[in-house]
Amino acid sequence: MVRMRKQFRDLASPEDAREAIASLDLTPDAETVALEDARGRVLAERIDAELDVPGFDRASMDGYAVRARDTFGADEADPVELDLAGAVHAGNEPDVAVDPGTAVEISTGAVMPPGADAVVIVERTEERDGSLVVYSAVAPGDSVMPAGTDIAAGARALGPGTRLTPREIGLLSALGVDEVPVRGKPTVGIVSTGDELVRPGDELRSEAGEIYDVNSYTIAAGVEEAGGVPKLYPHAGDDYEEMERLLRRAADECDLVLSSGSTSASAVDVIYRVVEERGELLLHGVSVKPGKPMLVGTLGEGSAYIGLPGYPVSALTIFRTFVAPAVRDAAGLPEPRTATVEGAMAARERYAEGRTRLMPVGLVDDGDGNTLVYPVDKGSGATTSLVEADGVVEVPADVEYLAEGESVTVQLFSPDVRAPDLLGVGEDDPALSRVLDRVSSPRYLPFGSREGLRRLRDGISDVAVVAGDRGDAIDGIDAVELGSWTREWGLVVPAGNPDGVSGLADLVDGDLRFINRDSNSGLRTDLGNAVAALADERGTTRHELVESIEGFDRGSKAFESPARAVAAGRADAGLGLRATADSLGLDFVSLGTQPVAVLANPDRAEKPGVDSFRDALAASDDVFAALAGVERGQAPR
Amino acid sequence: MVRMRKQFRDLASPEDAREAIASLDLTPDAETVALEDARGRVLAERIDAELDVPGFDRASMDGYAVRARDTFGADEADPVELDLAGAVHAGNEPDVAVDPGTAVEISTGAVMPPGADAVVIVERTEERDGSLVVYSAVAPGDSVMPAGTDIAAGARALGPGTRLTPREIGLLSALGVDEVPVRGKPTVGIVSTGDELVRPGDELRSEAGEIYDVNSYTIAAGVEEAGGVPKLYPHAGDDYEEMERLLRRAADECDLVLSSGSTSASAVDVIYRVVEERGELLLHGVSVKPGKPMLVGTLGEGSAYIGLPGYPVSALTIFRTFVAPAVRDAAGLPEPRTATVEGAMAARERYAEGRTRLMPVGLVDDGDGNTLVYPVDKGSGATTSLVEADGVVEVPADVEYLAEGESVTVQLFSPDVRAPDLLGVGEDDPALSRVLDRVSSPRYLPFGSREGLRRLRDGISDVAVVAGDRGDAIDGIDAVELGSWTREWGLVVPAGNPDGVSGLADLVDGDLRFINRDSNSGLRTDLGNAVAALADERGTTRHELVESIEGFDRGSKAFESPARAVAAGRADAGLGLRATADSLGLDFVSLGTQPVAVLANPDRAEKPGVDSFRDALAASDDVFAALAGVERGQAPR
Repeated sequence: MVRMRKQFRDLASPEDAREAIASLDLTPDAETVALEDARGRVLAERIDAELDVPGFDRASMDGYAVRARDTFGADEADPVELDLAGAVHAGNEPDVAVDPGTAVEISTGAVMPPGADAVVIVERTEERDGSLVVYSAVAPGDSVMPAGTDIAAGARALGPGTRLTPREIGLLSALGVDEVPVRGKPTVGIVSTGDELVRPGDELRSEAGEIYDVNSYTIAAGVEEAGGVPKLYPHAGDDYEEMERLLRRAADECDLVLSSGSTSASAVDVIYRVVEERGELLLHGVSVKPGKPMLVGTLGEGSAYIGLPGYPVSALTIFRTFVAPAVRDAAGLPEPRTATVEGAMAARERYAEGRTRLMPVGLVDDGDGNTLVYPVDKGSGATTSLVEADGVVEVPADVEYLAEGESVTVQLFSPDVRAPDLLGVGEDDPALSRVLDRVSSPRYLPFGSREGLRRLRDGISDVAVVAGDRGDAIDGIDAVELGSWTREWGLVVPAGNPDGVSGLADLVDGDLRFINRDSNSGLRTDLGNAVAALADERGTTRHELVESIEGFDRGSKAFESPARAVAAGRADAGLGLRATADSLGLDFVSLGTQPVAVLANPDRAEKPGVDSFRDALAASDDVFAALAGVERGQAPR
Repeated sequence: MVRMRKQFRDLASPEDAREAIASLDLTPDAETVALEDARGRVLAERIDAELDVPGFDRASMDGYAVRARDTFGADEADPVELDLAGAVHAGNEPDVAVDPGTAVEISTGAVMPPGADAVVIVERTEERDGSLVVYSAVAPGDSVMPAGTDIAAGARALGPGTRLTPREIGLLSALGVDEVPVRGKPTVGIVSTGDELVRPGDELRSEAGEIYDVNSYTIAAGVEEAGGVPKLYPHAGDDYEEMERLLRRAADECDLVLSSGSTSASAVDVIYRVVEERGELLLHGVSVKPGKPMLVGTLGEGSAYIGLPGYPVSALTIFRTFVAPAVRDAAGLPEPRTATVEGAMAARERYAEGRTRLMPVGLVDDGDGNTLVYPVDKGSGATTSLVEADGVVEVPADVEYLAEGESVTVQLFSPDVRAPDLLGVGEDDPALSRVLDRVSSPRYLPFGSREGLRRLRDGISDVAVVAGDRGDAIDGIDAVELGSWTREWGLVVPAGNPDGVSGLADLVDGDLRFINRDSNSGLRTDLGNAVAALADERGTTRHELVESIEGFDRGSKAFESPARAVAAGRADAGLGLRATADSLGLDFVSLGTQPVAVLANPDRAEKPGVDSFRDALAASDDVFAALAGVERGQAPR
């Protein structure tokens, strides 16, 4: 029998999705927590004072408790003399009364003794032979804080829905409240459904196509940030019976169940079955990019289900946009004031797909206090996009493009996210990596020299790091140099150089398995130039020599990858740096040196992050000295 | 022998105090936490990728793995036919290779089988009799994500000092990192030193002048918020040997030790002794108001000491201004973006004392998106000021006054603090209290009708709640009424009315101990009028009748206090409401009814908080019906 699924002919609009999610009942019961655990929680009910603060008439100055009537007329010229009857200190019960004509020494905070109705401050008195000389008259109530003056029993202290910050904790302390009725935190179950996923910490079988589960911990952290309690369920792999059992258990234990990454039809079938048997499917598919396959439903009494997309940035985007607000509402928390920032598009961005786009974006400060916004992760699904993207811009379905400079609202991925202090794009380099450790909050994207220059020209990044002969690439790009160094590059070969590689000729003439870098890399450019020079020398073409190198055309994006392939025995030679060979314990055949320069957008040369990078470069002699084949450049021109 | 203390002739400047505190070494050792506990923490060191992501060449589409060379020339008109050799699915190790002329079915995310270098997407193929018909040529690498494309082993992933939000947790997950090296959280010990302090939850002996310890939990919450771990030490009371022992223990166990409230000379002596024996006193006394007696010192290796003032608002102010930044620095956390807000002074504020003033202020939105700032807690030390004050404005020593409208920066007491949605001042009332429960984030200060009208006139509060005959008080004040009701007032007497009180005459003629309200209260005004009417009737003066009522002149600030005094047997009659007598199970002698009106500043009538209050008033028939002696007023005029 073919199971009939409820039909959803049209994709839901984002508004409908928000409404469907708002209709879910995620709110848990209120609970009671100890005062010391109450910070950040939300009061479930009004708290009225149950006692007076202070609980007694209290001396508010050091001095003498008296009957005010006894001091009438006293002044410097004509003081009054009273008998000293004793003393009362803070924290002690008075063991003496103030009878007419007497005074009792009293300290700030102490209980007014019976009979006394005022305090004469110590500066207006003098003790003499066991008597007290009073130089000022006082009125009833002077320097006395009557019981209940601060807070009175029965007064409204804090209302329901109040978020408890240190000051509210203080007021609750004053009232002696040590157990606080607070809104419950919604429990959010997270079930991961990809067959190939492995939890971080477990062994990864790459040969079997396993990858680490990114979404479970990411979403768990997001749930926590939104005021919920995440609950990770063990991973069921491709055991669908187990998965069904887990979903049912999660529905029983949680206010909301999330899953992500269920791309296989069988996994989706299991989810459908559980949702339809226990509750109701409210919508399947939302007209947004990403997130089209989003499922929303109930799982029976008091539990709801939302299915998230599998790509990490997409999952976080949908979580941020649709789920986090619902978790916050259930917890009684307001949207954080830092949930969004305003910015201006760094460049024109075209879009016309007829559905709302949730566009992941990065932020950069332009140095004049403005925030620029640029799109990242154009559907690549890359995990690294997670740390390049700061948030999401919601672009309505009918918008064809966003103009350069157009103002947009960015929903940050976390209230703690900020624009980086420094945005750099360019060559990857071990010295650079260490210098960046000394800069506060940099974002560096190792996309190669070419991409670095492109983004510098487009006014997106603050700096570009460019390696090798810049040639014409730098033409027309206005830049100031913050620092430079040279690095020795060549062929990384196995320890002991078993193939006896001595230069480029061995690569061309031998039968070596070679790993190149990709065409964005300054290293590859220099290698290409060296091959061309060798071709000239031999009277042949660059193309012919390149053809004879196995692996020249497919390059690795990452600077250490060729060397690592050599270390792992997957290649006989790899394009790389002496510093890399050195750090991995491999041998190295030098082919030359190349300059590496850090170039800054002149408009941002005074931006604090750029300044701090310049300083870090200037102060990093130790870094350059510690790396093999690296030489410090001249001071910036 | 008199102990010689290190002399500090001059008070330190706030800058010196900041420097002294910055010189303290509060930074704890780094530690390792599980990935699921890493959110909000700060990386202690750079994380480089230790593996490629993905760890294998990965199909990025559903389709067929092929040798690209085998598809050369294929198109719709002239497809290529390949033998189907098997299938590979995500999470499985390929058990088949792609030999020339063959293809293998492959799903998104699966490992590319040996021999294959591209994927033909399923839409461009057709299976026919166990063969695959391919309608498009592909190039090597098409629809394949090579190993390490997302992140490559050896690449810089996250730098030291990175704050871990969900997205960074995601990247760490992808790298399989399940234990994260993070900055330690500084441990901050809190020692409370007031003899009279009792921890919330413990029994309070008011008769002995005990009060609940406000600062310990307040500061503990502040420490937590700043990224530290608070550690509360048991309270030593007036046992100074025990206090000394606790301070030594705290110095051994904590990076920083805070104390507050040590007003007694003996307590200060103990602190001096411990600081001088184990470390060094860096400064004693700072030229700020409040906080003059602030102590800063070291307590030997790796531990520091700061003494805070005793008044709660002062302690939180000094903590916020001087201590929290140091705790954050030690934890590696930046100042939250919401740590400060900009606002405009609601009224002119004079100040000239020759030292920096840390002025506690409240915030109110003016309804046009501007934040107004007004001073609170002018040295009163009241705990309730804690929840009236939102933060602190630092006023330099040479500023004589702040003009109305002058722009100021408010350092919020907590990054979670916001201006209330509604600011009201006026009469306390049980119906009002319940209606306020239905308004989001109100701040209501029950300072009485007179003060309510004053602050409404001054443009500070949004609404005033005024009880009784408003007389001339309302003249010249522009206001709109949001709602009104009447309440029955009179004398609250013990259950059973043992003195047989039947009216005002019994109060005047009898020998009853009476408790009045204070002169800000609308109830007291109406009582005064009733006494005057009785005097007229009897042909005598109001003054004469008042004189014959014991307790008429000293009034309680809080509306329930007189009734509670009656309930506790401390009085025979108290001024109050029928609703209050009813809720406390007491008897009531009616003297009249009075109107209560909620009046709003017309400029803020459209402010969302005011609007929501108006709605709540309109929708609260149940509240008015449930309270004895309360009648709903007419609809707002």
